[in-house]
Amino acid sequence: MKLETKVTKLFNIELPIIQAGMVWVSGWELAAATSNNGGLGLIGAGSMKPEILREHISKCKAATAKPFGVNLPLLRGDAEELAQVILEENVPVVFTSAGHPGKFIERFKSKGMIVVHVVSSVKHALKAESVGCDAVVGEGFEAGGHNGPDEITTFALIPQIVDAVKIPVIAAGGIADGRGIVAALALGAEGVQIGTRFAATIESSAHENYKNEIVKAKDNSTTIILRRAGFARTLKNEFSELAIQQELKAPDDVKTLIKLSDKKERLGIFEGDAKNGMLEAGQGAGLINEVISVEELFVKFKKEIEEAFERLNGFRND
Amino acid sequence: MKLETKVTKLFNIELPIIQAGMVWVSGWELAAATSNNGGLGLIGAGSMKPEILREHISKCKAATAKPFGVNLPLLRGDAEELAQVILEENVPVVFTSAGHPGKFIERFKSKGMIVVHVVSSVKHALKAESVGCDAVVGEGFEAGGHNGPDEITTFALIPQIVDAVKIPVIAAGGIADGRGIVAALALGAEGVQIGTRFAATIESSAHENYKNEIVKAKDNSTTIILRRAGFARTLKNEFSELAIQQELKAPDDVKTLIKLSDKKERLGIFEGDAKNGMLEAGQGAGLINEVISVEELFVKFKKEIEEAFERLNGFRND
Repeated sequence: MKLETKVTKLFNIELPIIQAGMVWVSGWELAAATSNNGGLGLIGAGSMKPEILREHISKCKAATAKPFGVNLPLLRGDAEELAQVILEENVPVVFTSAGHPGKFIERFKSKGMIVVHVVSSVKHALKAESVGCDAVVGEGFEAGGHNGPDEITTFALIPQIVDAVKIPVIAAGGIADGRGIVAALALGAEGVQIGTRFAATIESSAHENYKNEIVKAKDNSTTIILRRAGFARTLKNEFSELAIQQELKAPDDVKTLIKLSDKKERLGIFEGDAKNGMLEAGQGAGLINEVISVEELFVKFKKEIEEAFERLNGFRND
Repeated sequence: MKLETKVTKLFNIELPIIQAGMVWVSGWELAAATSNNGGLGLIGAGSMKPEILREHISKCKAATAKPFGVNLPLLRGDAEELAQVILEENVPVVFTSAGHPGKFIERFKSKGMIVVHVVSSVKHALKAESVGCDAVVGEGFEAGGHNGPDEITTFALIPQIVDAVKIPVIAAGGIADGRGIVAALALGAEGVQIGTRFAATIESSAHENYKNEIVKAKDNSTTIILRRAGFARTLKNEFSELAIQQELKAPDDVKTLIKLSDKKERLGIFEGDAKNGMLEAGQGAGLINEVISVEELFVKFKKEIEEAFERLNGFRND
């Protein structure tokens, strides 16, 4: 089973499936396993110091001969140092997010890197295109982690971005199986970026407790928190309730909200405190019922994609 | 171009496209035009007194020999009288929403009617199935009008409902063109319910000003208002801002919020006050660029469905 799209050609990969760069989840093991199975693995620099990122890039290079990338959140205080590591290590692909897409693009492009920016509205997609990004990820409101305040869902967002830009569009948010992959392609996307489903794989560096919470999640197990201090989708737990109560009490006190969430991603995702940590996850969590290896996941995706194509073509009787 | 699914067979229609029953929008003209073009038209009883509903049903019967239905919001004070009209007029299909799906189902089923319930979570889909509904509409957070407080989007909701129930699932929310129709089918739906796109047709009974506001809308032009007093998605305008400010000021004062929105759907949608009225619309509004006839819309849908199938099958190279 193969799918050839503008995105598979852009990255020289077999399937248009990108594993999202997620804090405390996407180390070299997950990224290399994804790339080795025909997708594009991304190392999540958002939770790494520059030298840790360098180590992950080196290990990823040793573990796969296939293309891989790094996700770089542009608003981080040490974004410059992280970008420097990416440049020095000649990483073939960079996904940037949370910040101005033009920040490092000339330097990345001068090294021949492919640069993709993550957006949550048509306006930001046009901006990413205008500064020279090779593709754009359109991330819907259902996506886990940090998210766009316009609350535009994958279903509504993707075709509107596709109509607005000429560069390939990658869909993210709510996609956890082959049905979602084919649906995203039907909406006009040339590929998908999947987060939460990869967070609950064996190769994910997240804590077992966090993976188990994803497996237990139902359709209504996530919520938006910190609307004015980061805007993130997480699993509901004691921490999310605390954050929501604090927001109701003092919505304008952004400082307290930021302090409240400090180091809570690490506490929840990496250290496994399922009660007091910030368990970032998308609404697709309800579709995830077991922790499996990346290889098993790709076998599953391929089967589900086949089934979705067969089902769709079976509806035609003309 | 034909599509044969469980939903086309259930309703005996040509295309699995249902026109949503919308207040002040879906009278007999819109419903009959939809049914005559191969979809399933629904009369929206939510803004009709019982005798007005009877008149619309009679006119719809005269205008089409094809199946059509009525949407009945179960929480209305006069739901019993409206249900009585539907029963007396032998309407072939009833879509119920906003209330307990078991309320009238035995009476409807005893007349041989097909009964479908609108839900926004897996739990409510299971409930609808358990009381004997023939199908269920899964309505995502991006949908216009009254909506579910769990905020589950179409992309995440549909496959989860499909996995949970045995009855056919109809997807609603964010669908405004053929790409969305094919995407919904890929997610596991057997049909789609489309609202806002039909609201901006010539046959829609809504005011021209409201239709023009839909045409002007962009990806981020809608918002959720009245979270604790109905929960509805509308176009952003002076009224939505007023409602949001009131909610921030006194979130628990549901009475004031209900009073604030009283008759505002009529004012906005039917009387055309685009500033002070409540202009219900989904996030798909950004995909709608002109007011066209239902016949033209179906020509457009068919072309777009064809294109989406061709595009998808073009990705296969195995």
